[in-house]
Amino acid sequence: MASLSSRSLATLATGWRDATTGPAYGALADRIRLLVIDGRIPLGTRLPAERELAAQLQLSRTTVSAAYGQLRDTGYVDSLRGSGSVVRLPARAPDPGVTTTPEFLDLSKATMPGIPAVLGATERAAVLLPQYFGESGFDALGLDILRQGLADRYTRRGLPTSADEIMVTVGAQSAIAHVARTLLGRGDRVLVESPSYPHAFEALRAAGGRLVPVSVSTEDGWDELAMEQAIQRTSPTLAYLMPDFHNPTGRSMSPELRRRVIALAQRQGTTLVIDETMSGLGLDGQPEAPPFAIFGGPVITIGSVGKSVWGGLRIGWIRADREIIQRIARMRFTYDLGTPVLDQLIVADLLPDYEQILADRRIFLRENRDRLAALLADRLPAWRMPHVEGGLTAWVNLGTPVSSQLALAARSEGVVIAAGPRFGLDGVFERYLRIPFSHPIEDLERSVEALERAWAQISRHPVAVTGADLAQVV
Amino acid sequence: MASLSSRSLATLATGWRDATTGPAYGALADRIRLLVIDGRIPLGTRLPAERELAAQLQLSRTTVSAAYGQLRDTGYVDSLRGSGSVVRLPARAPDPGVTTTPEFLDLSKATMPGIPAVLGATERAAVLLPQYFGESGFDALGLDILRQGLADRYTRRGLPTSADEIMVTVGAQSAIAHVARTLLGRGDRVLVESPSYPHAFEALRAAGGRLVPVSVSTEDGWDELAMEQAIQRTSPTLAYLMPDFHNPTGRSMSPELRRRVIALAQRQGTTLVIDETMSGLGLDGQPEAPPFAIFGGPVITIGSVGKSVWGGLRIGWIRADREIIQRIARMRFTYDLGTPVLDQLIVADLLPDYEQILADRRIFLRENRDRLAALLADRLPAWRMPHVEGGLTAWVNLGTPVSSQLALAARSEGVVIAAGPRFGLDGVFERYLRIPFSHPIEDLERSVEALERAWAQISRHPVAVTGADLAQVV
Repeated sequence: MASLSSRSLATLATGWRDATTGPAYGALADRIRLLVIDGRIPLGTRLPAERELAAQLQLSRTTVSAAYGQLRDTGYVDSLRGSGSVVRLPARAPDPGVTTTPEFLDLSKATMPGIPAVLGATERAAVLLPQYFGESGFDALGLDILRQGLADRYTRRGLPTSADEIMVTVGAQSAIAHVARTLLGRGDRVLVESPSYPHAFEALRAAGGRLVPVSVSTEDGWDELAMEQAIQRTSPTLAYLMPDFHNPTGRSMSPELRRRVIALAQRQGTTLVIDETMSGLGLDGQPEAPPFAIFGGPVITIGSVGKSVWGGLRIGWIRADREIIQRIARMRFTYDLGTPVLDQLIVADLLPDYEQILADRRIFLRENRDRLAALLADRLPAWRMPHVEGGLTAWVNLGTPVSSQLALAARSEGVVIAAGPRFGLDGVFERYLRIPFSHPIEDLERSVEALERAWAQISRHPVAVTGADLAQVV
Repeated sequence: MASLSSRSLATLATGWRDATTGPAYGALADRIRLLVIDGRIPLGTRLPAERELAAQLQLSRTTVSAAYGQLRDTGYVDSLRGSGSVVRLPARAPDPGVTTTPEFLDLSKATMPGIPAVLGATERAAVLLPQYFGESGFDALGLDILRQGLADRYTRRGLPTSADEIMVTVGAQSAIAHVARTLLGRGDRVLVESPSYPHAFEALRAAGGRLVPVSVSTEDGWDELAMEQAIQRTSPTLAYLMPDFHNPTGRSMSPELRRRVIALAQRQGTTLVIDETMSGLGLDGQPEAPPFAIFGGPVITIGSVGKSVWGGLRIGWIRADREIIQRIARMRFTYDLGTPVLDQLIVADLLPDYEQILADRRIFLRENRDRLAALLADRLPAWRMPHVEGGLTAWVNLGTPVSSQLALAARSEGVVIAAGPRFGLDGVFERYLRIPFSHPIEDLERSVEALERAWAQISRHPVAVTGADLAQVV
């Protein structure tokens, strides 16, 4: 268990007494609470002993004791025999309305639990909220404060961007759908990776697109020749690509390939729709790639906090030329009238800490990736999990084309998982299974156990299962 | 200015001392702050004099004085010479990111400012939020707690409803778009009112619908004969109707007509999509009509808090048969992956107070409607504003077909307003102008002055202006 020294806590809490006029113990407790909900003190950290902290802060032990007592009473600290005072979030009586299906582990969605920093950001966003009560909320573009914050981050990453090149959307999926509906006509060709994110296929098809797949494999990455030929031969209107830690393979495009794709797109009149939802989630210490659009060319970038901060916030965005943003904005009200104000303020508040959030997520994901690799090697040695460079998922080769059958068997073992063909077109990928390693590690372990049982089951009774797997996959 | 007696405040604050262990002045200030942000003490109310409140609560005057002082320091009370202590919301230094176009009054959107109760609900929702961090947020249906709350309100209003007959959406517009995309095929006919809500036209057309208009007038309401004939002759797949305080005319359908429409729809195989966004906003003391679906038949109901609580929350919903909800849910991820968790929790929190919120809104709207009627009668006597039974807008007859020209002239006078034809098909309604009376009364007054100047301007220089007015209208 991680411990926090009294010196570190004193540093984190600098100025704790200035903020308020109430008693010292209340002010101290409040500051510690804020450090917890802002994620500055990780959950599970042991606070310093009362005596030490009192000495460090030159307070009476009674004051520190009262502060810890208040944190205990309000649920922010557990006092465990032998372990001291450990920070946590209040675990109130479970809400009767919360959906709980304890019997099912949902591996169809590659998502991480929300982070405590969302709570601190929510408190601060709530303070700003009344300033926006005079606004209608019906707004195709998004709040200036968030658009500016997102633009600044692109600029910091080497891609000069102004707020009017950003549109805030209800998650990345809306962003993809808005782009597709604005730029595609019926029957227009769209280059897509195969495998790829199935709801992008759906959005592109719903807007009239005819999909042209090119292969990405865990071993060799993009089939560069096929991609070049497909762009040259079909001159697609759009190409939807995920060059950073591609979902589901985890592969990334080389800078050379990026340049080549842009040059080809330019020549053929193809607009590149670049999904950077996974950007910043590299798991081998590699630096975050600069935005794809840095190389110039006809690029529309899709971003989201759904895979980094929390999917429950539903904030995504589009970065594109001013003129394209305006075109999409003119179409948008046909589908939705804007993005919730409060969620936008929360994300704007979190942006200054975004690099740290990503760093924490990488640590969490790296540990989980390594655990999944070890578990599969041990329990399911017939499967081949490639080394995953980044992202939230492994694209596991089962060695034999039984993915749909396995997904079905897994359901009876308490695991919902999408079969490989869900990520391809026309039923391919029966030999593959996408396994997310983004869930809490206990869930990962239980999931592998369930998959092991399902595997044993289908090995005893092999049955051909094919056809549409309509799981909603994220 | 409204005053609050010390007895009333003591009642509202019952138990104020129990909740906390801190000093009395802090606990009292905190309770008053909660009453303000929950909307229990309306903004602008004068608090009781310190001496009176001290006597009522059996406290020292110093304690009450310190409590008021804290409220003043945190921006919840203004102490005005001669007016005592008046509650308000903290007006912090304006955020540099807030869009402010002080020179423009936006009458293209019929919306009301957010209510303070949203703040209290946000605080409570934030407390529940960590319980949902384990959920992915990718959820086509919505949180059980909100679905159940919405179902219960239908049940209380006489329409037994279970949670699985509700889907929560990103506002009413998404709801309309989801319904349209699920139920319409290319070229299917859709009966619509004319005039009506233009973004509904767009969503229905984008899903392939061919619109069949039937007339609604401020004088006579629905053209019943035309409606019956249109349903019988064209057997539309859908009919999109707003039977409660129809936007923009403010008219409501009689119970007889509702029954007749349902019977006809049943016979012709038409599904009725009933937009009840304005339900509960009757301005003449009339009771809220029961849900349209109470009469049975093939009805899908659309609801939203965007016109009652605040558009910035972006929460709407669909009520339909379980099976239709499931069909829409299967399509939904093509377009968006769900509704923000926090906004859902906020609305779930507000639902128990929803009747009171509506009652307060009706008072506000009634006053504004009457003020607009008086202003127009005085300043623009050539225009004819009908009596408006409910809703947020008046459909004003200009007497002459110059609405587009007027809207253009209004822009140079600092007012953005949509011309009449925006609410119809094929350029009709040049004699009409939708004027919302939902904005703060000072804005209403400034708007009428600007319209008066614009009217004078076009009366001097009449020019034919026609063609598409692409204003986004809400």
